[in-house]
Amino acid sequence: MNPLDALLQADRRHLMHPGTHAHDHASGELTGRVMRRAAGIRIEDHAGRTYIDGFAGLYCVNIGYGREEMAEAIAAQTRELSFYHTYAGFSNGPAVELSRRLIEDWSPPGMRKVYYGMSGSDANDTQIKLIRYYQNVLGRPRKKKLIARQRSYHGSGVATGSLTGQPKFHAAFDLPLPQILHTACPDFYRDGRDGESEAGFVARCVAELEQLIDREGADTIAAFFGEPVMGSGGLLPPPAGYWPAIQAVLRRHDILFVADEVVCGFGRLGSRTGCAHYGIAPDLISVAKGLTSGYLPLSGVIVGERVWDVIARGSREQGAMSHGWTYSGHPVCAAAALTNLDIIEREQLVGNAATVGTYLQAQLHAAFDDHPLVGNVRGVGLLAALELMADKGARQGFAAPGKVSARVAQAALRHGLILRSLGMHDIVGFAPPLIVSKADVDEIVAITHRAVDEVAGDRDDD
Amino acid sequence: MNPLDALLQADRRHLMHPGTHAHDHASGELTGRVMRRAAGIRIEDHAGRTYIDGFAGLYCVNIGYGREEMAEAIAAQTRELSFYHTYAGFSNGPAVELSRRLIEDWSPPGMRKVYYGMSGSDANDTQIKLIRYYQNVLGRPRKKKLIARQRSYHGSGVATGSLTGQPKFHAAFDLPLPQILHTACPDFYRDGRDGESEAGFVARCVAELEQLIDREGADTIAAFFGEPVMGSGGLLPPPAGYWPAIQAVLRRHDILFVADEVVCGFGRLGSRTGCAHYGIAPDLISVAKGLTSGYLPLSGVIVGERVWDVIARGSREQGAMSHGWTYSGHPVCAAAALTNLDIIEREQLVGNAATVGTYLQAQLHAAFDDHPLVGNVRGVGLLAALELMADKGARQGFAAPGKVSARVAQAALRHGLILRSLGMHDIVGFAPPLIVSKADVDEIVAITHRAVDEVAGDRDDD
Repeated sequence: MNPLDALLQADRRHLMHPGTHAHDHASGELTGRVMRRAAGIRIEDHAGRTYIDGFAGLYCVNIGYGREEMAEAIAAQTRELSFYHTYAGFSNGPAVELSRRLIEDWSPPGMRKVYYGMSGSDANDTQIKLIRYYQNVLGRPRKKKLIARQRSYHGSGVATGSLTGQPKFHAAFDLPLPQILHTACPDFYRDGRDGESEAGFVARCVAELEQLIDREGADTIAAFFGEPVMGSGGLLPPPAGYWPAIQAVLRRHDILFVADEVVCGFGRLGSRTGCAHYGIAPDLISVAKGLTSGYLPLSGVIVGERVWDVIARGSREQGAMSHGWTYSGHPVCAAAALTNLDIIEREQLVGNAATVGTYLQAQLHAAFDDHPLVGNVRGVGLLAALELMADKGARQGFAAPGKVSARVAQAALRHGLILRSLGMHDIVGFAPPLIVSKADVDEIVAITHRAVDEVAGDRDDD
Repeated sequence: MNPLDALLQADRRHLMHPGTHAHDHASGELTGRVMRRAAGIRIEDHAGRTYIDGFAGLYCVNIGYGREEMAEAIAAQTRELSFYHTYAGFSNGPAVELSRRLIEDWSPPGMRKVYYGMSGSDANDTQIKLIRYYQNVLGRPRKKKLIARQRSYHGSGVATGSLTGQPKFHAAFDLPLPQILHTACPDFYRDGRDGESEAGFVARCVAELEQLIDREGADTIAAFFGEPVMGSGGLLPPPAGYWPAIQAVLRRHDILFVADEVVCGFGRLGSRTGCAHYGIAPDLISVAKGLTSGYLPLSGVIVGERVWDVIARGSREQGAMSHGWTYSGHPVCAAAALTNLDIIEREQLVGNAATVGTYLQAQLHAAFDDHPLVGNVRGVGLLAALELMADKGARQGFAAPGKVSARVAQAALRHGLILRSLGMHDIVGFAPPLIVSKADVDEIVAITHRAVDEVAGDRDDD
């Protein structure tokens, strides 16, 4: 057996993949693809095929792959202090320095402290615990319900998968947990009514949130979770005026705002944070992905003044809070994040994301606005989507969603480009590394065009 | 301001530590300690003081700190493939090879697949989801309750902190979640009745479990979680005959056994796994900590035949399971684990843990069995504990538990040894790296003796 076949066989035998059809993978009906090496925006598999990674891993590899500077920083910290925990006041230099930079340079105003984890999911799990703690210290034991949005993604754990507003994350696992509610997803393209203005649609979203709060009682609602731009729920930039209006409602009812910046943070939108991009003033922030560009697992819960003061008060009343992960503030992961931020700052990748992102959006509009298969072209910065429709004029999607977008992604892959199909509707997603050039964008758009045309042609043949 | 003071100030200003008194840390009343470098079993802080790490980080640094071989393997993989996800059948060489070795060499018989995460907490969160999925596929929607043990530790998240059987992880966070139950902790030293034999005590623990199952209805109980040796709940080896008897009850009622090997796995007990050490035949296993010796965050859920077959069936009925983490199967973390296993195997550290562990237990017994402050000396392999008592003869603990053991740990720290105080009772814990020699053990025991004597002397002065 050749080495690649042996690898694929061992993969089928022993590895349980996330989000993968268990039977078809184990039986070999789903063909695995073993990735071997990567540099910049390109990744090569064990069969020797090379792809442009148009989705930066899972929108995380902001600085691109295989940076020598990252390898050296990680190795140096491994030699120096390969690990120590940060419980009970123990600390380490990289975690301290990273916290300072995150608060001073990479957070909106009013943020005070960083608590570390390893993933966006665990960050949001921590958020739920901090919110419950906060309300208990304030003597508001009933104010505990959480609101997230339909189609949102906030993680895949028991609690965070409950926040996630996608039915496929719920049904098989008896989720959501009690006390987790969902309100409207601001998808103007799909859900705007005939003749409704964007402002009218926003007013309707806001009214739905108000009605939910009234129905449940504002004194029972603790916090609202939102991604500045919704990620796996559809790569959906908010309609104009959405975030100011939503925030006004939350403030009026004393409901905390948790900004889930896991996708948007660290430059993806062409701004340092999604909050800065949309004028969001959050109480709590979750970050991950771009924090290390995926080189090592690291997440952060960034705690604002208002919540921190109550946590400090809680410790005076109850002693140390019993919450923690072994690897919270891991020195090697923190060192990776520091070098990642060095690179983003030195190479001005946030600015590049803004400039090249504007170009990407323009090229996608030019290529697809009039394409019969493409109903909607949208995005912001280096995050973009094409929404494919069965009948574009009638805004009519496909009966069995996700199949046509998957075929586009497969066609792109054959032509050397990784895109992501989001199967809730037929959405094709783009989120390349922030180092892409306009020439790279031209290549991405050209391959995508070819892939979409092929699928459209096959459809005509059907 | 000198660099260390500046570091401590930034730490107080910006970093939220796990398990740390928020107010006292931020105000400086709790003095932080910034760790700087480490090699072997020794770690140095920024003030230039060196300590023997008698607890291996948080019982995770099995191969010791600062291994050049680890730095090189991590750097090499970072250069080659710094990240790619493993969703939808994508894979990478290190994750595949690690899965093969975990199943073939580091798991009890009957294990089939490995699903990766980053922490013990997320591994147990995944377990809960897999268990619910399993019962749903089998058409047993009512068989969902989970049993863990009082004083157990299975994580710190919303769901996993609910499994954890320690009140301090519950009260401030409105936990445990519904459908999570706790049964007796097998602490024969504390909870054995006067004149009761160890066998009699085990029979009582087993009867309590049976009564819980009868009361709730076996058709409502999905799974039981257990650490082969309880960790942060007291470093408690099970009484003789405990695990066989517990397993017989679970089998009779068709209740899955989840072995939480986060602490015990990878040699800590002088055996490859805690399951092998105690003859446990689990359905599911959680591993973390020793899997990478803490060099990078990595955990695994090891899925046995019986559960895997149902998961595969579920995918045929429902499609791909919607569960996953971005960093599941991270190639750099997997590469770190592979080199860690190389080192453990080549240097025969499991054998060393058995040999030196036996010596550690003997030396602790010799030094402390007759010490007036020490009521109980216990352990297995390189995991050990002293339990301090106010009145040893009457088996009477201290009125405000945790203060005396904390003073012993602080005294040891002053003398250059890190131990861990477990504050639920006055327990002083030992879990040195598996590379320790008998000479290292002599030093650890000597410093501990000095620390315990000092605290005992202070007590006499009170």
